Amino acid sequence: MNITELTGLTGDTICAVSTPPGRGGIAVVRVSGPQALDIVQRRWQGKPLADMATHTVHLGHLTDATGDVVDQAVLTVFKAPNSFTGEDVVELACHGSTWIQQQVIQTLIDAGCRLATAGEFTRRAFVGGRMDLSQAEAVADVIEAQSRAAHRVAMSQMRGRYSDELKGLRDKLLHFVALIELELDFSEEDVTFADRSEVTALANDIHALISRLADSYSDGNAIRNGMPVAIVGQTNAGKSTLLNALLRDDRALVSDIHGTTRDTIEDTVVMGGTLFRFIDTAGIRQSSDTVEQMGIERSWQALDKATIVLWVIDSTRPDDIATMAHDILARCEGKRLIAVLNKTDKVDDYSELENQLHKVGPRLGVATQTAISNKQESAAQTAINTKRENTAIQVTAISAKRESDIEALRDLIVQTAALPDVDSDAVIVTNARHYQALTRARDAIARAIDGLNSGLSGDLLDQDIRECLHWLGEITGEITTDNILGEIFAHFCVGK
Amino acid sequence: MNITELTGLTGDTICAVSTPPGRGGIAVVRVSGPQALDIVQRRWQGKPLADMATHTVHLGHLTDATGDVVDQAVLTVFKAPNSFTGEDVVELACHGSTWIQQQVIQTLIDAGCRLATAGEFTRRAFVGGRMDLSQAEAVADVIEAQSRAAHRVAMSQMRGRYSDELKGLRDKLLHFVALIELELDFSEEDVTFADRSEVTALANDIHALISRLADSYSDGNAIRNGMPVAIVGQTNAGKSTLLNALLRDDRALVSDIHGTTRDTIEDTVVMGGTLFRFIDTAGIRQSSDTVEQMGIERSWQALDKATIVLWVIDSTRPDDIATMAHDILARCEGKRLIAVLNKTDKVDDYSELENQLHKVGPRLGVATQTAISNKQESAAQTAINTKRENTAIQVTAISAKRESDIEALRDLIVQTAALPDVDSDAVIVTNARHYQALTRARDAIARAIDGLNSGLSGDLLDQDIRECLHWLGEITGEITTDNILGEIFAHFCVGK
Repeated sequence: MNITELTGLTGDTICAVSTPPGRGGIAVVRVSGPQALDIVQRRWQGKPLADMATHTVHLGHLTDATGDVVDQAVLTVFKAPNSFTGEDVVELACHGSTWIQQQVIQTLIDAGCRLATAGEFTRRAFVGGRMDLSQAEAVADVIEAQSRAAHRVAMSQMRGRYSDELKGLRDKLLHFVALIELELDFSEEDVTFADRSEVTALANDIHALISRLADSYSDGNAIRNGMPVAIVGQTNAGKSTLLNALLRDDRALVSDIHGTTRDTIEDTVVMGGTLFRFIDTAGIRQSSDTVEQMGIERSWQALDKATIVLWVIDSTRPDDIATMAHDILARCEGKRLIAVLNKTDKVDDYSELENQLHKVGPRLGVATQTAISNKQESAAQTAINTKRENTAIQVTAISAKRESDIEALRDLIVQTAALPDVDSDAVIVTNARHYQALTRARDAIARAIDGLNSGLSGDLLDQDIRECLHWLGEITGEITTDNILGEIFAHFCVGK
Repeated sequence: MNITELTGLTGDTICAVSTPPGRGGIAVVRVSGPQALDIVQRRWQGKPLADMATHTVHLGHLTDATGDVVDQAVLTVFKAPNSFTGEDVVELACHGSTWIQQQVIQTLIDAGCRLATAGEFTRRAFVGGRMDLSQAEAVADVIEAQSRAAHRVAMSQMRGRYSDELKGLRDKLLHFVALIELELDFSEEDVTFADRSEVTALANDIHALISRLADSYSDGNAIRNGMPVAIVGQTNAGKSTLLNALLRDDRALVSDIHGTTRDTIEDTVVMGGTLFRFIDTAGIRQSSDTVEQMGIERSWQALDKATIVLWVIDSTRPDDIATMAHDILARCEGKRLIAVLNKTDKVDDYSELENQLHKVGPRLGVATQTAISNKQESAAQTAINTKRENTAIQVTAISAKRESDIEALRDLIVQTAALPDVDSDAVIVTNARHYQALTRARDAIARAIDGLNSGLSGDLLDQDIRECLHWLGEITGEITTDNILGEIFAHFCVGK
C-alpha cells in the first residue's frame, strides 16, 4: 500500500476558493494536481500554460465550456515540485464577487477538477513530503491564531522548530535502542552492560525532554485557545459593565482594519499579546426560585472551568464580602483569584471594606495587610497571599462604569496569567493530540527507566522504547492512519 | 493643475487587504505606488525586490520593524506601467487569519505605506489612464454582480464595449462641431449651409444612439439591482410560504460552494440568469386596528415600487377575488400582474374560482377566456390581456406548501420580466449617474435638432453640441471633478 492509497487520496486535480468566504476586491481560486495545467488550459484565453515558466504571473480570461468569458483573471503557475502541495499548482486571482467565485469553481469542475475537501491542499503537502504532520497542523493554527503569542507558537511549529525537537528526541531514542540491541546481541552470553549508567543517563535525558514538552501544554493550551477568566459576583455588582469595559479596546482594534464578525470575539480579548476568554456569569444571590438557582449553579460551573477568577464586589456594600467569601473561596482552590472592588466612584471611605476583607482574611489565612487604592491613587494592587496552598488573592479597585483603572486591572490579569514570553523560536505544545501522544511517550520512557533501575532485560526495555518512538512518530505523522488524518484535516477550512 | 492634484491623490504608496474580510486559507494584501518596492523591501526576508523580474512570484518572510517574522508569504511583483494601477504594485499572499492580515497592514504602514481608501486602487488605474471612468465603475459592478445577466453587462462595460460606443458618439459629435464651425467660419459672409440635411441626419443619428442607451437603463437597472416583485394578498393566502418556495433553490446553490451570508440574499433570487428582488408584504384585510392599518399601508407602498406583482389568492376562498380585485387592480396600473391561485392541493373544483375571475374580468375589461390549471395538469398559464392600457393579468395555479408548479411560476415570472437576452458584448446602461448624463446629453442634442429645424445660427447650435459632449465626457471621466470621483469611489470596497 503506497502513501496515496494509505491516505485515501487519488491522483485527482482539486480546486477551491482559498480566500475568505464572501465578497471582496479579489478572490483566489487554487488548483492542484497532475492535471492542473491541462484543466485550466481548457478554460484559459491567454498565453498557453505550457509556455509559462514556473512562478510567473499572467493576465487573461477564464471562460466557461461555451467560450463565454467568466472573468478577467490573473493566473500564477507553480510547477511541481516547487509549489505548496509539491504538485502542479495554478492560482487564479479573479474578481471577488461570490457569483464569479461560484462560476470559476463551476467551470473548473466542468473541465475536470474535483472540489477540494477541507484541508486537502495541506494534506497533499504532507503526503508529498513538503512538511510533516505537526507542521501541517500548524498551518491551521497559524490561520486560527488570534494573538501574538498564539501566532508565534504556531509559526514556530510551522517552520519546523517543534519537528526539530522531536527529531532530536527520536535520534536519542534510536541511540538508546542501539545500545540496548548491542546488549541483546550478547544476550546468548548472558551479559548485561557492566555499567548501565550511560543508558540510564540517556533515558533520564529523554524523559526530561518529553516532560518539558508535555508540561508546556498547560501554557500552550491557554495561549492557543485563550486563558479562561470567570467573572463572578453578586447581582448588580457590575460584572457585565466590567466585561464590556475590558472588551472595548480590543474590539475597536480588530474592527478598525477589517470587518471581523463580532460573534466570534464576543467574549475574548487580547491583552499583553495573549488571548483571554472571558466567561460572564449570572449574578449570584440567595434564591429560592428554582429557575434562578439553576442559573446560579451554571455560574459556579463556569467558575470551575476558569484559571483566573475575577470576584467583582460592589464597594458600596461591604457586607457582601462576608456573604460571598465562603462559597467563592471554596470553589477557587488552585485558581488565581482577583478581588475587584467596583464602583469606586461611589465610595470615599474604604475602612469598612478593609474591615470586611480583614475579617475574611484571617478566616482563610490571608495575610492581614491589605492596601486598597482609593480614588486619588491609581489602583494600587497588593497581592495578598493566602497561606492556603495554591490560592493567592489579589485586590484591585476600579470603576467599571467610568472605566477608571481598567488598564491597571488588565495589567494585573496579564501578570496573574503568568504565561511565558513567547519568541519566534518557542517550542510550546498547543495541540491536545500531541499532548496525549507525549504523555504516552513519557509513560513509556518512565517504564523503561523503572526497568533499567530494576535490572529488566534488554528485550523488555526495547519494547518500551519502541512504544515511545511510536507515540512521537504519531505527532510528526511518520506513523499514522487514515482516521487520524481525516480527523486532523476535517478541521481545516476548504481551500487550505 | 495636473491630474494628480485634480483628483486629490498624492504620490503616496497605499496598501490594503484586497480579499474578502474574515478568515480564510490565504489573504492578499496589495501595495501600490512609487515606493511600493522600497517599502516592502524594508520588511522582506528573501530575494531582493529590485532583482525580481516583473510578473514573478517569490516565497519569503514578512517581518515587523524589529525583524520578527509576521508571516511566511508569497510575493508577486508587477512593475510600472504593467500593473492594475499602472504604478509599481506588490501583492503579498499571506495566511488568511484576521490577526495576520492586521499585522501585515500594520507593518506596511509602519514602513511607510498609507492605508488605501475605498476604491483607491481602481481610482489610480483611472487616473493613470489604465481605464476610463465607466470601466472603473464596471469593476465595482463586476464585484457586485449577483446574476449572469448583471455580470455580463458589467464585464462588457469593464472590457470597454460601452466606452467604445461613447467614443463613437463623441466622434460623431466632433464631426457635427466641425460642420457647424465650418459654417461659422463663413458667418461674416452671412451664409448658412445651403442644405443642412447632412447635419440634420447626423444630429438625428446621434439622438437615436443616445436615446437607445438612455432607454436601456430601465432594463439595465433591473438587471443590475434586481427586478422588484411584490407579493400581495390577503392574510393566510400563503405569501410567505410561496416566497420561501421561490427562494429555496437559489439559497442552496449559493451556500453549496461558499458560506455566503444569508442576510444579503434574504429576499433576492436568481431565476433564468436574472436577479429578482422579492418584497413580501403583510397580509391585507379590512381592519379597524390602527397599527394593523399601518402595516397594510406599507404593503400597498411596497406594491408601488414593484414592476411585477404576484397576487396570491387562497383558492379555497373564491370570494376573496372580488374583495381584493378593486384595490389591487387600481394599484397595478402599468405593472405586470400575475394572479397566483394557491392551495391547489385543497381544491378539486375550479368552477367557482373561474366564476369569480369572470366577474372581475369584465369589470376590468379582462378577456373572458381563462384557463386555470387543475391538479392533474402542469400549471397551464393563460395570459389574459386586459384592455386597460399597460395592464396584463396572467393566471397560474400552484401549491406553495407542496411546492408543486413552482417551477412553472418561476418561468412565468422570468417571461413576464421580459428582460433582454444579454450577451458578452451587450451595451446596456445600468448606472444611474450615466442615465442622468445621457438624458441631459439627449436633451442637448434634441435642442440642437430643434435649432436646426428652426434655422438657428451655428454658434447657438455649437453651444448645445458642446453641452452634449460635456455630459458624455462626464460618463467616461474626461470631464470630471473631485466630488464626482469621491462619490463614485466611496462605494467601492477597500482593497479594490
